[in-house]
Amino acid sequence: MSLPLDPPPLEALLGRGRATVGELFLARAERSAERPFLLFAGRTWSYGEARQEAERFAGWLLSRPSGGSAGLRVASFLPNRPEAIWALLGSTLAGAVYVPLNRAHRGPVLGDMIARAGAQVMITDLEGLELLPDLSATAVDAVLVVDGEPGPDSDFARRRSWQEVESSTPGAAPVSDPSALAEVLYTSGTTGRSKAVLLPHNYLVRNSSWVAWSLDLGEDDVIHAWLPLFHIAGQMDTVLCFIAAGGVVALQPTFSRSRFWDQVEGCGATCFIGFSNVIELIWGIERRESDAATSLRIGMVGGIPPKLHRDFEARFDVRLHDIYGMTEAEPLAFRHPGTEPPVGAAGQANPDFELAILGPRDERLPAGSEGQIAFRPRVPDVMLKGYEHDEAAFVEATRSLWFHTGDLGKLDDDGNLYFKDRAKHAIRRRGENISSFELERVLIGHERIAEAAAVGVPSPLGEDDVKVIVVPEQGAALDPVELWEWCQEQMAAFMVPRYIEISERLPRGPTGKVQKEELTQVSADLFDAERDRGKSRSATGAGR
Amino acid sequence: MSLPLDPPPLEALLGRGRATVGELFLARAERSAERPFLLFAGRTWSYGEARQEAERFAGWLLSRPSGGSAGLRVASFLPNRPEAIWALLGSTLAGAVYVPLNRAHRGPVLGDMIARAGAQVMITDLEGLELLPDLSATAVDAVLVVDGEPGPDSDFARRRSWQEVESSTPGAAPVSDPSALAEVLYTSGTTGRSKAVLLPHNYLVRNSSWVAWSLDLGEDDVIHAWLPLFHIAGQMDTVLCFIAAGGVVALQPTFSRSRFWDQVEGCGATCFIGFSNVIELIWGIERRESDAATSLRIGMVGGIPPKLHRDFEARFDVRLHDIYGMTEAEPLAFRHPGTEPPVGAAGQANPDFELAILGPRDERLPAGSEGQIAFRPRVPDVMLKGYEHDEAAFVEATRSLWFHTGDLGKLDDDGNLYFKDRAKHAIRRRGENISSFELERVLIGHERIAEAAAVGVPSPLGEDDVKVIVVPEQGAALDPVELWEWCQEQMAAFMVPRYIEISERLPRGPTGKVQKEELTQVSADLFDAERDRGKSRSATGAGR
Repeated sequence: MSLPLDPPPLEALLGRGRATVGELFLARAERSAERPFLLFAGRTWSYGEARQEAERFAGWLLSRPSGGSAGLRVASFLPNRPEAIWALLGSTLAGAVYVPLNRAHRGPVLGDMIARAGAQVMITDLEGLELLPDLSATAVDAVLVVDGEPGPDSDFARRRSWQEVESSTPGAAPVSDPSALAEVLYTSGTTGRSKAVLLPHNYLVRNSSWVAWSLDLGEDDVIHAWLPLFHIAGQMDTVLCFIAAGGVVALQPTFSRSRFWDQVEGCGATCFIGFSNVIELIWGIERRESDAATSLRIGMVGGIPPKLHRDFEARFDVRLHDIYGMTEAEPLAFRHPGTEPPVGAAGQANPDFELAILGPRDERLPAGSEGQIAFRPRVPDVMLKGYEHDEAAFVEATRSLWFHTGDLGKLDDDGNLYFKDRAKHAIRRRGENISSFELERVLIGHERIAEAAAVGVPSPLGEDDVKVIVVPEQGAALDPVELWEWCQEQMAAFMVPRYIEISERLPRGPTGKVQKEELTQVSADLFDAERDRGKSRSATGAGR
Repeated sequence: MSLPLDPPPLEALLGRGRATVGELFLARAERSAERPFLLFAGRTWSYGEARQEAERFAGWLLSRPSGGSAGLRVASFLPNRPEAIWALLGSTLAGAVYVPLNRAHRGPVLGDMIARAGAQVMITDLEGLELLPDLSATAVDAVLVVDGEPGPDSDFARRRSWQEVESSTPGAAPVSDPSALAEVLYTSGTTGRSKAVLLPHNYLVRNSSWVAWSLDLGEDDVIHAWLPLFHIAGQMDTVLCFIAAGGVVALQPTFSRSRFWDQVEGCGATCFIGFSNVIELIWGIERRESDAATSLRIGMVGGIPPKLHRDFEARFDVRLHDIYGMTEAEPLAFRHPGTEPPVGAAGQANPDFELAILGPRDERLPAGSEGQIAFRPRVPDVMLKGYEHDEAAFVEATRSLWFHTGDLGKLDDDGNLYFKDRAKHAIRRRGENISSFELERVLIGHERIAEAAAVGVPSPLGEDDVKVIVVPEQGAALDPVELWEWCQEQMAAFMVPRYIEISERLPRGPTGKVQKEELTQVSADLFDAERDRGKSRSATGAGR
């Protein structure tokens, strides 16, 4: 089957294959003004109403005393709620760059991201307000609080209430260049701190339209949208691809196994989404008579567990479609309409990308060989533009002019991609990538910790659990329980280690490098938060 | 015809497709020890003798009091002479990185390059010694003089005589990784100062072997090698590709129209090389009875003038083969054996590269359309690794993961590349790229110049002549003749402007940017060095 040159949903809506986020959204809002777009907490917004919300936020941004949209950046620090969508759409309508921050971050990692974001406007809720660091040394001049009166201004920035937005005159000053920067997203690598990924408008629009094409999404589709909206998958594979398709986003605050079926039935979801652990969690729900008679039609899953794939489909009468991607380029592989990827495969390449498997010297390996997954774009503005303030990392990632994903996998003769493993020393917990560098840096900030190393150990839910090994300062005492509690305050919940080992030294190689492979053992006497603190197992993230 | 996976000359010599410069040279020196390699000034070196010369230089490097080869960089500032070849080969045999500097540079541009090169060893001749800037703030700790006693040491670095090299014990400590850095070469762009291009061993070895394949070079071929050895073409398209083929390099100090045929006859050259102006210059030599009866078989030409192509071939009974490349990747297109590229075409892609023509948004254009020439490597380590200390420029050049050459051209249905023009505002004079930024910076260094702009104006010999427009400091007087003489001291001869205009201001656009397109007029009363100073027309450079 020959592939379309442009994503058909985008072609159908705009008559062209490149667009800005604003152009996509406004065209859809014209076309489907009366159709439902968003369901949340019992309320429904039509596409027309959503346009008003987004334009009011754009209008508020443009009428700020400190000026228009030139160079404007809007950061958000929000849980899943409608304002996160109005902020995304409204920022782009105002010609601003949107910088969504992971709501789970805490302490120094959060502070570092805010400092780097360079945003003049920060959007959060009352709970987030308490978590924000001192903003006095940042560019932030307005903190917009979405869920109540924010109280008196602090020294550093004027606190504003979302009510100002609701009473604003709708406005718009969108950029018209699809190659212009739309978003900055932070993603962890295996080394170094989180990188600031620069995403152009066309990346968001075109790739989400390919997802809609892949899944044959239409006006009657409804997605159970629990993935965090600050992640690339939450934005593209729920909100934006449903805008491209004209479907309905049933936004959920988070994933809940106990409420999953009630939520699905409540919104009539035809589509659900998640990573491998979500398949395990839904599979583990007690069997019901109605398992095969739900409204669900498809599941969009990053890494379907092969052993459950066909059984899951039979039990719930749904089709599971794998999808492979990352913040730098999402999606890279998925099902092509009319094909049936083999179990274990993520599907074939996004038509905008060439996939390759590279050997250790960057040589291209033949079909069937395992190596590093790499890609090149076939058209402009469908991948990141670069890492902000870290050109050297981008040059390294794009050596030989292949973008190196760091993931291991293979391609079969039909071009189906099999994801095998992440890069050595990468840590990924339930959909969240964790920078061991950042985690270690937080731990070393503890006054009684001299050295620290963080590693991933295989989790029974798939992906990793986090283990840390800490070396106390000379003569200092460290208690794992106390350290675990300290971590709750200092870092995102998904970064908080499950296992804590106190050690006299870290194993180091001849060059002084910590030998992390020697640290992944989990002995029975190790502190285990799940056993020792009853820490709950939850589905969390969504970013690759 | 299906293309070979590896360059046949390399495969024949080493049984593999990747190698270091040392591996290529030593394998050839074993195979062809008694065969002639180099002819210069009446003297001949066999491959075996050349190996001794190179190993003695490597031995000298390794026995330096300041230590071995780790991190060692060797810069040269030499005209064409055998020591430039021993320095190239010997540096790589010693595991050092070679940094050949353009011998034409002068003053501040030369000083900046030396400072950036980070070389501990500088090789030059007595004349070059006089041109070198103060080296006290650089890493240079030894200045090796190839043509005589260098006189007393200066404060900054120990001057050494090449006789030390000649009495050194041969040595070698080559790197074994073909992806390791072999050379740093400076090349100008259209904006900014010259970039330091990082070239791995495999780039030099593999690409020069492709050139040997393209031209079907063999042991009986002799090249009239006048191109400067500090340029990529001088190194790869003469020295290294003849080592790959086992042929003879008849090194010439420079190109001389009056002595061209005597030189060709003296060495029995089967091959000559140059850019478009060399075709014009040879064509302009008075016709001789023997024009069609010389030893020449082929000419390797960057940009054959189409109007002369077939006539030149008929008059001299040679075949002209176009070749297109640049310091960042050489060659990118050339004749494939068994094919006959159309007049005006450079040939088809080097088998290691994918060529594309990109539109203004980086979209790939169909065959026949004119746009920017871009490339991607098909195998690792065949292009530059990056620009040293300028990752941002490399990220910009490789946007969309295509390397943007800055050149304009088109591809036909058979994949033949037609070079059309250089990027806007690029200046290229007789094979030398000129950085307008660096030229302007030198001019602004003049105590009576407030502002300066440099542009290229079309030359009757092809490519450009240099025009500068200078604005005197308030109240200061400037005389074009005096300024032209000052330029001789301050910059490379190829940068010295032919046309000088004194103006009260530079035309600037709304953002303050100089509108260079308004400056390319040459009026009859303008200072013209060729008319007013009798400046000779010579063939110069060789780098793209």
